[in-house]
Order: sequence, then structure tokens, then C-alpha cells
Amino acid sequence: MSAPAAPPAIVLVEPQLGENIGTVARAMLNCGLTDLRLVRPRDGWPNPKAVAAASGADLVLETAQIYETTAAAIADLGYVLATTARLRDMLKPVVTPRAAAAALRSREAAGTRCGILFGPERSGLVNEDVGLADAALTVPLNPAFTSLNLAQAVLLIAWEWRVAADTTPAERLTYDETAPPADKAKLLNLFEHLEEALDAAGFFRVEAKRPAMVQNLRALFTRAALSEQEVRTLHGVIVALSGLRKGGGPA
Amino acid sequence: MSAPAAPPAIVLVEPQLGENIGTVARAMLNCGLTDLRLVRPRDGWPNPKAVAAASGADLVLETAQIYETTAAAIADLGYVLATTARLRDMLKPVVTPRAAAAALRSREAAGTRCGILFGPERSGLVNEDVGLADAALTVPLNPAFTSLNLAQAVLLIAWEWRVAADTTPAERLTYDETAPPADKAKLLNLFEHLEEALDAAGFFRVEAKRPAMVQNLRALFTRAALSEQEVRTLHGVIVALSGLRKGGGPA
Repeated sequence: MSAPAAPPAIVLVEPQLGENIGTVARAMLNCGLTDLRLVRPRDGWPNPKAVAAASGADLVLETAQIYETTAAAIADLGYVLATTARLRDMLKPVVTPRAAAAALRSREAAGTRCGILFGPERSGLVNEDVGLADAALTVPLNPAFTSLNLAQAVLLIAWEWRVAADTTPAERLTYDETAPPADKAKLLNLFEHLEEALDAAGFFRVEAKRPAMVQNLRALFTRAALSEQEVRTLHGVIVALSGLRKGGGPA
Repeated sequence: MSAPAAPPAIVLVEPQLGENIGTVARAMLNCGLTDLRLVRPRDGWPNPKAVAAASGADLVLETAQIYETTAAAIADLGYVLATTARLRDMLKPVVTPRAAAAALRSREAAGTRCGILFGPERSGLVNEDVGLADAALTVPLNPAFTSLNLAQAVLLIAWEWRVAADTTPAERLTYDETAPPADKAKLLNLFEHLEEALDAAGFFRVEAKRPAMVQNLRALFTRAALSEQEVRTLHGVIVALSGLRKGGGPA
């Protein structure tokens, strides 16, 4: 087993605006990428406009490497993707950002260093550079408006790479130590308190409808995923409105 | 069955920079969203800097609605998410962008209009606005560098919403009408041509190793997913290198 490879390199071919290089660095670091490679940046390097736009992602700019050719920039990589709006006159696999993220992760797990090529802002990658890549990567956007800023393109792809190994729970509730979720006994106790108070107030006028109404109320409060504190608060609400403590006694 | 609802509204609460409103509009339209709502934009509305930054997403800016309060901006919505870096002193579900996209899509399919709240650039949403939402949405970025531009935050979330219903094949090959994929008979014919030429050239010196070497060569060319045109080209390559046409005759 090889050790997993480092995160993918981002290779900008002939980037024009220093500001875009800076916002690319920021998007990279947001997603945990740090290996930035620049092929013939138009305005030279270092570029103060890049630093100003990086919003603190200086680490990425300081360690960026400069290359004369795309071939030199990817020489040490084993798997390379080329971002393109459309592929002309070339038979090559075309992958979505999500499929690209899975492909990158599986190769990195096998110890293969990977990289992603981005072309100049206006024109995109030339065919010769796309030809160097193992696959083309196209972002399926609104067909009526596909114009994506360079840093936005880097962000979407770096984001998909990051999420592919992210373990954040899809949904969680922010219970803290002082307000843990109520257990089912406490919840049942609350339901009974409410139902006693409603019985005493004559709420269930039609006895035949009582079971369904009770079920609906219980479902509502179960869906709310109450904390212990909230259960105590609701007992207080019932007492305040009805004057009835749990067990039927006056408050 | 209700008709599916329109795509989610993007609600910017007290956005400061016109430029950010413009780049938000661009990110929205990239992903097919058009319902932009602004609550007390700092520099008034309309804002020429927003138009300059929208890079052609004028439609979104022209139809943007202005509100005095967050409550008014979301009054017609049935499900609302609030973007926050962290949730303080509030018991609420917290979802990832991917889980949010699934939640939005399922509610939209049931005809529920949805929206996503974004706070001012520096300070984020106040607790009172988060409290209006059904769930909080947090983007799990590199913990060492979570600073995300407003338009980048909108882009990531709008992207996840778009991908959740995107039908683009994860991977495809760009065969065209003039170069369809070769069928297996054509491929087998190519293999036999190559193996005849290699036999004639004495390539398989150790007969015991021949089956494995043949398998490896066949695997390599199968993995390349050749087009019909490429099969013809490779027949030509074999003839050129070996002087041997298919069937063993001289070229």
C-alpha cells in the first residue's frame, strides 16, 4: 500500500489578472488545497494584486511555483484533469466535478499525485494542453449562462474534492450539555400533562375524535425534537394556561 | 399533487458592497436561480456597481425585490434556511449544503416555495433572523481558513441545489458521428493483426509468457475505448512498423 498522495495541485495556465490568482488562492485554502502552480502568468510574479485579493491565503501564494510550460508544471503528476467549456475534435473522457472528485480521491488513495488545469480567463485551455490531461472536466451550469469566473471554477471543483471526504453529519441538532434531548419518558410525561389539561378544559368534545387528535399533537411535539429544557418550559406553559399541574392538581 | 415550486429565493440581508450583490446575481444565474431579494441594501438600489459586477446577469438584478425587514422578505415562503458560520444559543437543525439541497428539492417537489438567507458580509445573520429559519446551513470548509466571500457562499449552495437534479452523465466519451466507438469484432480484428505482426517479428520469445502478454496488450487497448477511426489508424500503424497487413501478407 502506498501512502495517500497530497491534495491535488491547481495549475493556472497563463492567468491574466493578479486579482484572479489571489481569489483562486483563497478558494483553494478554503477547501484545504495549497499546491498552486502558475504557467507564464501574464503580469509576472510575485504580483501584489494577487496578495491583496487573497484575503489572507498568503501561504498558497508564497509557495506557488512558476513554470515555462504546462508539460513542466505537470511533470511529477500521475493523473491530470483539464477544465474546458467544451471539447473539440478530441476523443477523451469528460467528467462532471463530482465524478472528478471521486476519480481524484481514488487515485490519491493509491498514492498518485493529481492536478487540475485551468486556462486563461477569456480563452480557456488550448487543445495541446487539454491533450496532456487524462480527462476533461466540464461544469454543467445553466446552459443560458455558463460564464464562470476563474476563482469560482476553482472553488466548485475544490469544494467537490473536499466534500468527497467530508464527514460532517448531513443534519445535526445543536443540543448542548445544559439542554440534552429529552428522553421518551419525559416526552410521554409531557403528552399526558397536556392531554389531562385539555380533558379538564373540555377540548376533546367528540370522544370518537380524541385518539386522532391526541396522535396529531404527539406527532407535532415529537417532530420538534424537544430538549429537556424545552419539555420543562412546556410543562410551565400548560400550567400557566390551564392552572393544572401534572396529575390533575391545581397549580 | 401540487405543481413543483420555483427555484429557491436568495435573500441578502443588509448587503454592503454593490459589487458583491452583482457577483451573487452572476452565481445565481450560473445555477439557474433568478429570485433575488434584498433587505435594506446599505448603498440603496439600484446600484451601478452591482450591474458592473454581474457580468451579464442583469435579469437577476432587474427583477430583484427590496424589503424593509427579513420577515417581509420571506413572508411568502414555506421553508427557509439561514446560512451561519456557527449557531449560538439556539436549538435548531444544522445542515450541510448537500443536505440542504436535498431538503430544498423535496419541498419544492411538493410545491413549497423555499428561500435561503445570507447575512451582511462582515457580521453574518443576527440571531433574530436565524430564528425565522427552519434550519441553519453551515458550509464545512478548511477549519483553518473558513473566510468565504458572499458570492462564493451563494455559488456553493446554488451549485449543490443545481447538481441535486442534474442529469449530466458523471463520465462520458466524446465520440461523434464520424468516429463512433469500435464494436468488439473490430477490436478483436485489431488484436489479431497486432499479434500476427508481433509473432512474425519474434516478439513473443518465450512461448509460456505469450498468453499473459497478449492479455495485457488487449487490456491496454480495451481500456483506451477506441473509436472506429482509431482502430483504422492503429491498423495503419502496425502495417507501417511491420510491413504486415492483416492475414500475414506483406503491405
